[in-house]
Amino acid sequence: MTDRNEEKDNDQEDELLSSALENTPRNVQLQSFLNRYETRQPKLLFTDHFQQHVKRRCSSMSFLYCLNALLDMIPIVRCLKEYNIRKNLFGDLIAGFTVSIMHIPQGMAYGVLATLPSIHGLYVSFFPVIIYMIFGTCPHLSIGSFAVVSLMTAQAIENVIQLPMNGMRNNQTSFSFSTESDLLMTDERINLATTLALLVGVVQLSLSFLRLGFLTVYLTEPFISGFTTGAAMHVFTSQIPLLFGIRTPRGIGKILKLPRFYVKIFHLLYHEINWMSTAIGLVSIVVLYVAKSLNDRYKSTIRIVLPSELILMIMWTIVSYFTKLHQKYSVPVVGEIKRGLPTPTIPSFESFNQLIISAVVIAAVSLSISISLAKMFSRKHNYKVSSNQELFAYGMANVISSFFQCYPSACPLGRSVVQEGSGGKTMLTGGFSSIILGTVIIALAPLLRSVPMTCLSAIIIVNLKGFFLQSRDFLFYFRINSFECILWTMTFMTVLLFDVDIGLYVGISTSFIINTVRTQKPRFVTLGQIEKTEIYEDIHRFPLAHEYPRVKILRFNESLYACNAPFFKRKLYEFIDIQFTQSPLISYGTEKTNINLSIYKFVVLECSPFNYIDTVGVKLLIEIYKDLKKRGIQLYLSECRSEVRHTLDEMQFYDKTDSGSIYVTTHGAVMAAKYHLDNETTNNDQRSQV
Amino acid sequence: MTDRNEEKDNDQEDELLSSALENTPRNVQLQSFLNRYETRQPKLLFTDHFQQHVKRRCSSMSFLYCLNALLDMIPIVRCLKEYNIRKNLFGDLIAGFTVSIMHIPQGMAYGVLATLPSIHGLYVSFFPVIIYMIFGTCPHLSIGSFAVVSLMTAQAIENVIQLPMNGMRNNQTSFSFSTESDLLMTDERINLATTLALLVGVVQLSLSFLRLGFLTVYLTEPFISGFTTGAAMHVFTSQIPLLFGIRTPRGIGKILKLPRFYVKIFHLLYHEINWMSTAIGLVSIVVLYVAKSLNDRYKSTIRIVLPSELILMIMWTIVSYFTKLHQKYSVPVVGEIKRGLPTPTIPSFESFNQLIISAVVIAAVSLSISISLAKMFSRKHNYKVSSNQELFAYGMANVISSFFQCYPSACPLGRSVVQEGSGGKTMLTGGFSSIILGTVIIALAPLLRSVPMTCLSAIIIVNLKGFFLQSRDFLFYFRINSFECILWTMTFMTVLLFDVDIGLYVGISTSFIINTVRTQKPRFVTLGQIEKTEIYEDIHRFPLAHEYPRVKILRFNESLYACNAPFFKRKLYEFIDIQFTQSPLISYGTEKTNINLSIYKFVVLECSPFNYIDTVGVKLLIEIYKDLKKRGIQLYLSECRSEVRHTLDEMQFYDKTDSGSIYVTTHGAVMAAKYHLDNETTNNDQRSQV
Repeated sequence: MTDRNEEKDNDQEDELLSSALENTPRNVQLQSFLNRYETRQPKLLFTDHFQQHVKRRCSSMSFLYCLNALLDMIPIVRCLKEYNIRKNLFGDLIAGFTVSIMHIPQGMAYGVLATLPSIHGLYVSFFPVIIYMIFGTCPHLSIGSFAVVSLMTAQAIENVIQLPMNGMRNNQTSFSFSTESDLLMTDERINLATTLALLVGVVQLSLSFLRLGFLTVYLTEPFISGFTTGAAMHVFTSQIPLLFGIRTPRGIGKILKLPRFYVKIFHLLYHEINWMSTAIGLVSIVVLYVAKSLNDRYKSTIRIVLPSELILMIMWTIVSYFTKLHQKYSVPVVGEIKRGLPTPTIPSFESFNQLIISAVVIAAVSLSISISLAKMFSRKHNYKVSSNQELFAYGMANVISSFFQCYPSACPLGRSVVQEGSGGKTMLTGGFSSIILGTVIIALAPLLRSVPMTCLSAIIIVNLKGFFLQSRDFLFYFRINSFECILWTMTFMTVLLFDVDIGLYVGISTSFIINTVRTQKPRFVTLGQIEKTEIYEDIHRFPLAHEYPRVKILRFNESLYACNAPFFKRKLYEFIDIQFTQSPLISYGTEKTNINLSIYKFVVLECSPFNYIDTVGVKLLIEIYKDLKKRGIQLYLSECRSEVRHTLDEMQFYDKTDSGSIYVTTHGAVMAAKYHLDNETTNNDQRSQV
Repeated sequence: MTDRNEEKDNDQEDELLSSALENTPRNVQLQSFLNRYETRQPKLLFTDHFQQHVKRRCSSMSFLYCLNALLDMIPIVRCLKEYNIRKNLFGDLIAGFTVSIMHIPQGMAYGVLATLPSIHGLYVSFFPVIIYMIFGTCPHLSIGSFAVVSLMTAQAIENVIQLPMNGMRNNQTSFSFSTESDLLMTDERINLATTLALLVGVVQLSLSFLRLGFLTVYLTEPFISGFTTGAAMHVFTSQIPLLFGIRTPRGIGKILKLPRFYVKIFHLLYHEINWMSTAIGLVSIVVLYVAKSLNDRYKSTIRIVLPSELILMIMWTIVSYFTKLHQKYSVPVVGEIKRGLPTPTIPSFESFNQLIISAVVIAAVSLSISISLAKMFSRKHNYKVSSNQELFAYGMANVISSFFQCYPSACPLGRSVVQEGSGGKTMLTGGFSSIILGTVIIALAPLLRSVPMTCLSAIIIVNLKGFFLQSRDFLFYFRINSFECILWTMTFMTVLLFDVDIGLYVGISTSFIINTVRTQKPRFVTLGQIEKTEIYEDIHRFPLAHEYPRVKILRFNESLYACNAPFFKRKLYEFIDIQFTQSPLISYGTEKTNINLSIYKFVVLECSPFNYIDTVGVKLLIEIYKDLKKRGIQLYLSECRSEVRHTLDEMQFYDKTDSGSIYVTTHGAVMAAKYHLDNETTNNDQRSQV
């Protein structure tokens, strides 16, 4: 770069050009342009960077700073300090009430979905909400029981329990309802669920302390949409047996899980269907669906959401209690419920090893869904949500709740939208909701023992509507972006055909692979000058763009690096009519010979799309430069960004090629090429004249 | 886009601008520019594309075409047809002879490395060479036995054999040399090795038939370099016991394999070291190293490579035979060797299931190394190598050889470089080499039974020199490209600390992950105009670049998509001084208020680095546009490429934002901003004057 000879060369070239072209910097070569305008910053070593960082940190450290930072980890303090009673109290109260009313039936239903006694679903709707209120930053999130996480909890428990009991379980054919048989080992299940919650919380807390919240950017929208849509299918399927009052088939492998599940269910349906249960369930679904639809329509006019789920549940409970549905028609009901808040117990660590993988998966799923929801609300209402603080809040919620017999919690879309829609403004919404839930758990729980299971299934199924509607995302991505569409489909299909955890792995891998595949075969276009401007555009799209004879202007619309270098080379040679294809062995008769001679004398490669170039890319450019030189073709680069220039420098591109082949602008390079061509022809003309 | 109102708007704006600015297309908005110059190509559906493709294919189909295509799959035909005896024959003969002389000791050594009788290494140096000569396209590749693949073959065999014999093996402490004990189950080992070769060949052939040769682009240079350097360490380690004449420790897990191996070896060394074997080995290493170094130095003057390995082997064989090294000093020797070519046998399919994963891994490793070598030579000598044809050739070589008691073959760097250096020009080189090897196998094999094992180890170890020198690649990547350096290090370290196959998985995953991570936090720069030109550059690097008051010109040096969208948003707001940070809870005393007011009125975002934008990116741009609008800031985009424009169109960017916010060039956008600002101030001035 600072080589003497080179500079001299540049200067000479420079003068030559200056005389021929108008003297604006854009028409000169990059080297002289940089010499004139650029200042090099002193290179900072890694250690210097680190020192600077530490210094900056230390200088801002003070007692007050630390105290503020600490208080920022407990956002409720700020919320209480800045609380505006007149502006916020009414909305928070209403929203808290509305959401707590949704919490009751949903909590019970999801508790059953997690194969635990339904009261534990209520615990999950109570404890995590209080803790999230203290540490969370998004007032519109309704943390608590969540269908997908409940299902995954059930599976994790199942995995551990099935192992030692495989033999025994096969003999157990006398039980008529899976939930009843499950209750036989309730204590073990509860133990496992609380351990799982603790582990999920620990995973989330560690992510938060390691400041790894940024990892959530890899859980992109198409992935989450495809994943939750697929998971909703699993939740839906898990409710079918409860709806029809039949046994839940167990021990189905992960391959083609859903179809095999349905085959088993159809078999069971024929033998065991409970018509009363089915009737109650289907009626509930229709009623709820209509009520929800009405609610959605008149949401704008009526502020308070109709507690259709609660009304329905109360109604069926009364009916069930007085008509003795359970005894007379053997409709499965919730059954005995413990009264009062659970006494704090320390989760057991026995099954730690068997649960840790499930815990990581559940942590990933719950945080990805919750954070994407929080970001959505924060965008809508313009407040800041910090991934790391949210992770901290979810982690604390799970860890502390795990001492109160809770299973892992998360933030479902449906309830959160209601919390937002019914006017919740601050974190206190959660507090008001918890007060009501606490009352229910302490005082009213025993009244709920007659709730028919099928009614809870109906509540879950109708709440899945939003997820099923997400399948429209497929069409959206299909129309607009094939890569996002592939990601959505891959994630959805693997969740559907295999299982939730496999879908998670495949989906995340796919999103990484897609980012590479996307850059494999970018468009490689020939550019032409638009009329007399200095704008160069694709000649296929802009018919008025004209090319200069014997000059090819090309643009490769991606960063050049190892994975697309072979494609780049092949295409480039195709564009300038150099072909490596051999003549056919048995000749056709009439054939052109000498196809290896290109009509071009100059190739200008616009490097503006190169955001990055690696050593393989630079090696290729040097190789192509030399090869074209041999064929009498000059390669010019233009519009290289500083990142690319830096790598070219480091790889001694300038020493290995003739210096002065890089131009600031495409127009400059084209003009230089034109100048050389014109010179050549006049020289030839003069010679021929002489 | 074709909306009437919008066009009218555009026209109005256009007129306004035209009057104010010079009337070149660059200064107008993108919409009017496109209307004037762009033609839309009719959208082709997928089916249309397919039809076109089929038509094109069918039209070129003819008997001659098909015949030629078929003949192109057997490149030897073309080679023989175009063979120039005067020009090529001498070089081919010399190269064939030289390489065959290298084949003999290496083949035997690698045969032992694969824990097979050494004669099988010679088979691998014979059969695949003939078949590759017929189907291959790269005359400089010396296919045959290869250290890394031999080692992986040994591991694959070990995995299968260990399973049923685990209990028995632990009791076997009487054997003094692993090779001897291995020979106890020679037949089983040979069976497994040939099955493995068949499977590897089938994998390669399927890749070739599915035209998946392009997948090899993911096996990038840093990966292959790191991988083979690590694998060389394993090969080196495997030779230590043979060198010192001790037992090979077995049954070491994959975690920290090498250190644990060394610990065991040090223990064995103390008890079992065979000093005679050690002496022979060390002397051989020194002699070979010196001979190779001399060879490298005088390569340019002497054309024929000194067959130092062969001379050394013959010498030690004679010494070993006459001094009875084996009997007197119990130096392990090669032992009984079958004479003559093996009779064709069909590989057994018993262990198919246990070998298939190893086969896929070996196929991937061997083809990635071979193809990268072939590409290197093809670049150097300017001929074309087709990945798919090469895959076909390797596959055929493995499949056919597997019927002749061969284990998987590949192309090592060292021998191939010799083949190239000693003047081989055409595929016939391989033929000449095979003739000599065939003679050795048929006639001279029994003479080799006294070759000391330690001598073969010495040959392998010295041949690893090239791989160890590759560790300099680390420094190269460290200096130039941190991402390639990370890839190299990750691959190398996992191979070193775990095992070859784990290294392969981790390396490939890393290269995918790196391509995503690379785009996470690109440089986001403020641009300024360079003097009076229309060139805008980073103001930090170009101190003469000047900004316009109240206009911020930004460039995000990567494609905007889901994974970097949050970073983009945060940085953009930082750049235009909009901060979301809350005031500290406990205030410091002196603080500015109203930090949320930006001094900027226009933000110009140069989109030239956007090679791709996804729906998340567009949504973010719309959101930012609207948010900035609320704050009284106008966002202009400039230099959007057609791919980006297409996605913006599809996402109704123009409907959702005010039309006319996209400009063709950055300068155009800046001028428009300046015009509006000037207008505003003159209006204000006029008003204040009135």
